Amino acid sequence: MRTVVVTDSPRADAGDAAALGDYGVATVHEALGRVGYLGPEFRPAWAGARAGGTAVTALCWPGDNLMIHVAVEQCRPGDVLVVATASPSTDGLFGELLATSLAQRGVRGVVLACGVRDVADLRTMGFPVWSRAVSAQGSVKATAGAVNVPVTVGGQVVHPGDVVLGDDDGVMVVPRADVGRALTASQARVEKEAATREALRAGELGLDRYGLRDRLKELGIEYVAHE
Amino acid sequence: MRTVVVTDSPRADAGDAAALGDYGVATVHEALGRVGYLGPEFRPAWAGARAGGTAVTALCWPGDNLMIHVAVEQCRPGDVLVVATASPSTDGLFGELLATSLAQRGVRGVVLACGVRDVADLRTMGFPVWSRAVSAQGSVKATAGAVNVPVTVGGQVVHPGDVVLGDDDGVMVVPRADVGRALTASQARVEKEAATREALRAGELGLDRYGLRDRLKELGIEYVAHE
Amino acid sequence: MRTVVVTDSPRADAGDAAALGDYGVATVHEALGRVGYLGPEFRPAWAGARAGGTAVTALCWPGDNLMIHVAVEQCRPGDVLVVATASPSTDGLFGELLATSLAQRGVRGVVLACGVRDVADLRTMGFPVWSRAVSAQGSVKATAGAVNVPVTVGGQVVHPGDVVLGDDDGVMVVPRADVGRALTASQARVEKEAATREALRAGELGLDRYGLRDRLKELGIEYVAHE
Amino acid sequence: MRTVVVTDSPRADAGDAAALGDYGVATVHEALGRVGYLGPEFRPAWAGARAGGTAVTALCWPGDNLMIHVAVEQCRPGDVLVVATASPSTDGLFGELLATSLAQRGVRGVVLACGVRDVADLRTMGFPVWSRAVSAQGSVKATAGAVNVPVTVGGQVVHPGDVVLGDDDGVMVVPRADVGRALTASQARVEKEAATREALRAGELGLDRYGLRDRLKELGIEYVAHE
Amino acid sequence: MRTVVVTDSPRADAGDAAALGDYGVATVHEALGRVGYLGPEFRPAWAGARAGGTAVTALCWPGDNLMIHVAVEQCRPGDVLVVATASPSTDGLFGELLATSLAQRGVRGVVLACGVRDVADLRTMGFPVWSRAVSAQGSVKATAGAVNVPVTVGGQVVHPGDVVLGDDDGVMVVPRADVGRALTASQARVEKEAATREALRAGELGLDRYGLRDRLKELGIEYVAHE
Amino acid sequence: MRTVVVTDSPRADAGDAAALGDYGVATVHEALGRVGYLGPEFRPAWAGARAGGTAVTALCWPGDNLMIHVAVEQCRPGDVLVVATASPSTDGLFGELLATSLAQRGVRGVVLACGVRDVADLRTMGFPVWSRAVSAQGSVKATAGAVNVPVTVGGQVVHPGDVVLGDDDGVMVVPRADVGRALTASQARVEKEAATREALRAGELGLDRYGLRDRLKELGIEYVAHE
Repeated sequence: MRTVVVTDSPRADAGDAAALGDYGVATVHEALGRVGYLGPEFRPAWAGARAGGTAVTALCWPGDNLMIHVAVEQCRPGDVLVVATASPSTDGLFGELLATSLAQRGVRGVVLACGVRDVADLRTMGFPVWSRAVSAQGSVKATAGAVNVPVTVGGQVVHPGDVVLGDDDGVMVVPRADVGRALTASQARVEKEAATREALRAGELGLDRYGLRDRLKELGIEYVAHE
Repeated sequence: MRTVVVTDSPRADAGDAAALGDYGVATVHEALGRVGYLGPEFRPAWAGARAGGTAVTALCWPGDNLMIHVAVEQCRPGDVLVVATASPSTDGLFGELLATSLAQRGVRGVVLACGVRDVADLRTMGFPVWSRAVSAQGSVKATAGAVNVPVTVGGQVVHPGDVVLGDDDGVMVVPRADVGRALTASQARVEKEAATREALRAGELGLDRYGLRDRLKELGIEYVAHE
Repeated sequence: MRTVVVTDSPRADAGDAAALGDYGVATVHEALGRVGYLGPEFRPAWAGARAGGTAVTALCWPGDNLMIHVAVEQCRPGDVLVVATASPSTDGLFGELLATSLAQRGVRGVVLACGVRDVADLRTMGFPVWSRAVSAQGSVKATAGAVNVPVTVGGQVVHPGDVVLGDDDGVMVVPRADVGRALTASQARVEKEAATREALRAGELGLDRYGLRDRLKELGIEYVAHE
Repeated sequence: MRTVVVTDSPRADAGDAAALGDYGVATVHEALGRVGYLGPEFRPAWAGARAGGTAVTALCWPGDNLMIHVAVEQCRPGDVLVVATASPSTDGLFGELLATSLAQRGVRGVVLACGVRDVADLRTMGFPVWSRAVSAQGSVKATAGAVNVPVTVGGQVVHPGDVVLGDDDGVMVVPRADVGRALTASQARVEKEAATREALRAGELGLDRYGLRDRLKELGIEYVAHE
Repeated sequence: MRTVVVTDSPRADAGDAAALGDYGVATVHEALGRVGYLGPEFRPAWAGARAGGTAVTALCWPGDNLMIHVAVEQCRPGDVLVVATASPSTDGLFGELLATSLAQRGVRGVVLACGVRDVADLRTMGFPVWSRAVSAQGSVKATAGAVNVPVTVGGQVVHPGDVVLGDDDGVMVVPRADVGRALTASQARVEKEAATREALRAGELGLDRYGLRDRLKELGIEYVAHE
Repeated sequence: MRTVVVTDSPRADAGDAAALGDYGVATVHEALGRVGYLGPEFRPAWAGARAGGTAVTALCWPGDNLMIHVAVEQCRPGDVLVVATASPSTDGLFGELLATSLAQRGVRGVVLACGVRDVADLRTMGFPVWSRAVSAQGSVKATAGAVNVPVTVGGQVVHPGDVVLGDDDGVMVVPRADVGRALTASQARVEKEAATREALRAGELGLDRYGLRDRLKELGIEYVAHE
């Protein structure tokens, strides 16, 4: 495992990242062509959390949060800290004191491949965290890892400088080079969905609106009345 | 896999289905003799959801929600849409736009063997959904399936026309032929539980009220004081 | 399996147990040296639950809640009932009626290695329950078990008389002999954390406050600028 | 839960069932249109097991094998015993003594939604068992269930009289009414696969043999050389 | 977590432990009254493994096998090394070199709450290992733990000096004080099972041999012919 | 999702890849600094499988193996085909006919993030496959994906041209740029382990050989005799 701290990693535009967070995970994921989602295991520590920011990454040994402390120093306003572990672990490597430190630095949220603790406090603070587990299990500070190297979480590669966004649907990553495209495509999707929503509210069917009836014929789907 | 859409499937009485939903899953499950529960994997998308209606079923290929769009057209006021997949999948085949369409048609809720997305919107809409996962992962519309065929979800067979109900305890199915019995037995159970509740509040023990002390003797359970 | 009911099991001081509950799981777990946590599988039935009390234990056969009814009689004000099963089960062995009975006796909460039901009612009552699952699946009363024998739940041994506490972070056990030490160490930790919190809010880094920079050197961690 | 034992349930032709077992799960599953598979959780107790026979079903309470003993009496030569539980359980409800009894009656194998024990003995006996778990956890004989009622296992409904087959790929069910079609379609598939196998061995590509190249064009798949 | 190495822990009689291993997990588990089984998650690294010996215990930090190296020195001929971790981990803390060292000391096998690696080599050596996972993931030697303190694995407490046995059905623990009773009861069970086996082979039914027919009547189980 | 087929992807030296396969996963993983392992979920379809080759990658939609057929044409002697899916799926996208085609082309093995079927046939053929599941569940050929794009499997990024190796311990990836270093470091490790093995066989302890006794003192680990 690499044991390095990369400083001055690139940042996405803070406003762009916030805008992607506001569009939300489901919209941006679709807008980009159904890529980048970290999967259903990543859940918000409290319902209603929402954030978008630039990824700063930390790679920790299981049961050891030393590199999170190292990563805090590398964080700036507008960042989202993304924590991976060298092997699967549910331990609670992150809690309210680290959140206090990150909030002081203007960090917008945290994504943890492991567990989170102090959930009641985080809810009170309104500090957004997504994780694979809630766990009070404490950690040591004994083994080296890395900060701001590319990490894989939830089947997605996150590079420092990518945009990470989260809401009640989970978490996704937008590669830094795709941020502009994501914004444009998300806005287009939001507008299209608004029109669709109105049509559906007026009683139009998705089958007609999306032109699916021909597809059903091609597939040989038969309609039969209940006997 | 069958590729058919069955139209004009039977409906349970809308008032009966709503009444079963009001009794709630735990009560109706007990009243019917501890059958019909879909198991602990099915969770509400938002706390406090509650619904009861007639099942319309859809069978989808994993990662493909074409048949949900087909099923929407078959739904009527008072229905609950039940979605099964041909093999296990957590993908988010259902979200806010489909919910808008169903709400417009008077559908009372959705049960998904797969995932749901747009959870924040569904909470705001107050549209009840139960699912095995929350997932933003989007879907295609490429492969045929079926609507209104019997499906197996959570170890239970759901026929179109059965009553499906859900609340914070999960989801259960009541076969259409058992609806009358379920109503009678649930009402009896509610009344009996009200009396039991009062007795317990007054300090009576379940051991006495349920006549369990003889059972303990038969089983040879000994009482010994802590040494 | 032993089939015995132990009466008059010892109790911790009710005020001490409540105080540990107020410190919370993450704090007491750290204060005692990172031991006693039941792991991330035990979740509160409703967000915001919090309790601390003396353990009364029940050991049940899977799908059978007979011994919970037996245990109720052994419960006193200030207790927390801890339910283990002889083998893994998610069935809902505990619901609102049992909670009513326990509340009447002054019991502070319940920890279940299996499932809970009537979640909406428990939330309304404000009765705290932690469990591995939410499940409406009902139970029989057919097979003997034990009350107030030591049980293993979540990888921890709970003896009757130990203190059990729970909050949004999960559940932990404090052996009765360690209660005094737990109180002292938790208070010390709370005070230390308050000072740390202030320092972090003022911008001090954990790296400095915890003296970690030397550790980084020992571990050979390099800092390099992003190329 | 129904508490009934149905006697004289129908049987499939013993030779037909054996023939389907010889075709194997993957072949018959495809031949019938990709239906009937119990999913990847059902694994053989020993590698190389293979069987096909008529389903006799038992529905047990978790941790209780009373109804398996009842089912043994209903078994005849050529049967496969299928055991479901009222709720999820991994307990080892079946072992070598029950296998001895079934082997004496000419039963061809067992499928368990729960666990199996005495695996080393079963391997020595050559008695085929598929299960969700291997577990030495023993059971009681206290609670009623049913024999020869339809059961749901692995997302499939098994009726007494259906054909059940298993091999290293898992387990599937063929409804009794579909046995003839399954035999014909499986034989056709085996012959077609033999021809395909020869063609592939000779270097023909599936892309050509299955006529997939046009599909790729329709889907807009591009070929680009590695830069 | 305690950080201590306890030397000169007690041993069970080596012959007794071996005899229990020969009886096997399912037999001894039943003989002792269905207690002590570590559950279905613990699987042998190679089929056919079998062992019984005195427990020496190690408690490791996740991803760290330092305390296994410490434990080796405490092992003697006839021991079985039991490794727990402070929190859940699948990492491969044990492999062929440690097995070589243990085999040299006459150790009979290893039980791991985490993962094992070098499975092909262990099979060739014939060295028995049971674990929750197979994993090549390597470990560090950075964090303190304990040797020969009581540990909880698979829901069972293992004290140094207890007998641990494993076979294809998994692993169980016999408290040292129960070894004599376990031997007597296992031998009785083996003899009783031999007689039962002969009777079953001769066609007697378990329903008759175990006197279950009266139980069926009590439970109100009806027999009805298939319509 | 990208829908592209990249042709003429780079290859590692066939002999180098085979040599890494012979060193085995645990050795190469350690030699490279404990990186690249796909985790314990990837298991061989049959015990004793071993392979090393150059990665050709396919990215499939769940339940759809179209892109595997496309990938076959891109495979050459010495390759290992690595199959990812757009979202989690256990379906059996690969079986004996595809293996026949790959074997004809000199492919050394297959790694599947999903399921495999025809396990008995693959064992007979001696064709190595690693997968997350064994499943007979069949697939469609309806949705586009990609061939020879970087994919993430088991938390590792696999680029076409990387070396992939597997054995009874699972699967790992070696980036093409690291193959030389991996060979050198693996050979060094094998030699060092041979010497260590001899020393351990002669009774030397790892504590001494690895110089761990000082570490124990630093960590404050105490030795106490069993009371």
